Amino acid sequence: MARQTVSHEDGAIYEFTPDLEAITTIDPGTDLTIETRDSLDGAVQDESDVIESVPEEVNAATGPIAIEGATPGDVLRVEIEEIRLAEAQGRVITIDGFGLLDRHEDIDAPRTRMTPVEDGTIAFADLEVPVDPVIGTIGVAPDSESYTTLVPHDHGGNLDTTDVTAGNVIYFPVFQDGAMLAMGDCKAAMADGEMCGTGSEIATEIDATVEVIDAPAIDLERPLVETPDSWKTIASAETLQAACELANRDAIDLLRAEHGFDATDAYMASSLVGGLEISQVVDPLVTVRNAVPKAYLSDPF
Amino acid sequence: MARQTVSHEDGAIYEFTPDLEAITTIDPGTDLTIETRDSLDGAVQDESDVIESVPEEVNAATGPIAIEGATPGDVLRVEIEEIRLAEAQGRVITIDGFGLLDRHEDIDAPRTRMTPVEDGTIAFADLEVPVDPVIGTIGVAPDSESYTTLVPHDHGGNLDTTDVTAGNVIYFPVFQDGAMLAMGDCKAAMADGEMCGTGSEIATEIDATVEVIDAPAIDLERPLVETPDSWKTIASAETLQAACELANRDAIDLLRAEHGFDATDAYMASSLVGGLEISQVVDPLVTVRNAVPKAYLSDPF
Repeated sequence: MARQTVSHEDGAIYEFTPDLEAITTIDPGTDLTIETRDSLDGAVQDESDVIESVPEEVNAATGPIAIEGATPGDVLRVEIEEIRLAEAQGRVITIDGFGLLDRHEDIDAPRTRMTPVEDGTIAFADLEVPVDPVIGTIGVAPDSESYTTLVPHDHGGNLDTTDVTAGNVIYFPVFQDGAMLAMGDCKAAMADGEMCGTGSEIATEIDATVEVIDAPAIDLERPLVETPDSWKTIASAETLQAACELANRDAIDLLRAEHGFDATDAYMASSLVGGLEISQVVDPLVTVRNAVPKAYLSDPF
Repeated sequence: MARQTVSHEDGAIYEFTPDLEAITTIDPGTDLTIETRDSLDGAVQDESDVIESVPEEVNAATGPIAIEGATPGDVLRVEIEEIRLAEAQGRVITIDGFGLLDRHEDIDAPRTRMTPVEDGTIAFADLEVPVDPVIGTIGVAPDSESYTTLVPHDHGGNLDTTDVTAGNVIYFPVFQDGAMLAMGDCKAAMADGEMCGTGSEIATEIDATVEVIDAPAIDLERPLVETPDSWKTIASAETLQAACELANRDAIDLLRAEHGFDATDAYMASSLVGGLEISQVVDPLVTVRNAVPKAYLSDPF
């Protein structure tokens, strides 16, 4: 089967809605290359290009891609094989009214810093940071509400989670026929937290393979990511505390299904291994993971 | 210089106060062994021993140990060399009114699970968890307020941070003459987050060496931990968001001192490397770290 390329020029969305229309339909197992533009649609090309306020349209997600045979109740399995940078520089920006420290008086916004790519690193002033790309926005058509690509929720969206990277697999609940996968908003590098509101925003080409899990053994409510060592639940909410509760509840459900624990024993087990991790603290809803090492969890599907 | 042992039987505190009186005074560089009892003072020896409500006295911290020559404005450097388990089992407990999910109706409290130690692991039901000890409570005499050993703050205290472990170094501001170091509340294993409110609570013997950094090059306001790969600021606050802001501000100060950045550039750099990490989400104040890899930060003192 030939590799199929889907470009942001073929179609991109700024909102995940329940009634998305696909720009293409693929069979499960297709070798996909997804081309994404940077989260700011190319508006920032040097340090004099500053962004005064959060744009109405941001984080363009290439797609939607319908997956043949995906129906509500299934799980979509997205294996991320490789993420290649598609331009010679990324950009880190501050925007007034956005970011962890946006009300602090010594923090200047708007500001832009360009981060040139060279020999597997990006440069930020005298820092040489290894390229370690992250897909910031990735998701499927939601159940009933709509979410702009600035917002993370149970359908995915603007998760800004460093584990959404090459070598890992991300799983989504399927809410609509065809699932309607879309992704974009990649970073050449990003810290857990994404404190200033961006990583090094950059255009990419993503190699991925998508499969449909029919009749999954667990009822997946939110995204789940598989790394070489761990399964990590991902939850977004208005506060970090609320996101921690959701992520922990989901980890508890996985531990219960595997070990036959009641909720309390699973909760106690979750307090011993792996643990809570911060994805991002800046988007309209914030995002947290609960990692459980694979030593204690097998494939839940 | 002979190794000096300080036992919880010599003295232990349940509150860090500005006017602590030392049970012993040591010279900097002394080879110390600190014996700690479990956080529940031995009250839980089998699964029928349950804790109905948070005890008034909990997390006994062995000490205080005065360090000769430490004066306010210095930094105390505590190198943790080894943590040995001093009993054959730990315990994980839930307490009504405590823990991330304590209001959830399927979570049963009080409950106790014993975790026997065998061959470098602890057993929780069918889970075999590698022993990886953590010092839960460690700190110095605070500046002006008093804090029970249930509470973390700028003096340290109940930080419940998995990086406070063998092979790492933790640094504290010195607020009072002699610093008045105390530690206890160890766990045989703990997840980041400590969701149910405890790890596997256990008695230990801690080998450590303490040094005083006179005239430090930075003004340390809160604890800082050094791992083999990273420097991590540690901050506690009423909400995770507020703790993230403090931990990020401290990381920004370190990046500024090293790279000559203004606050905004340091903030942007902090969004590219390392990142925010959750220590614990259950104590009266919650605790967060901001890790910065050593590739971008040298010893700040």
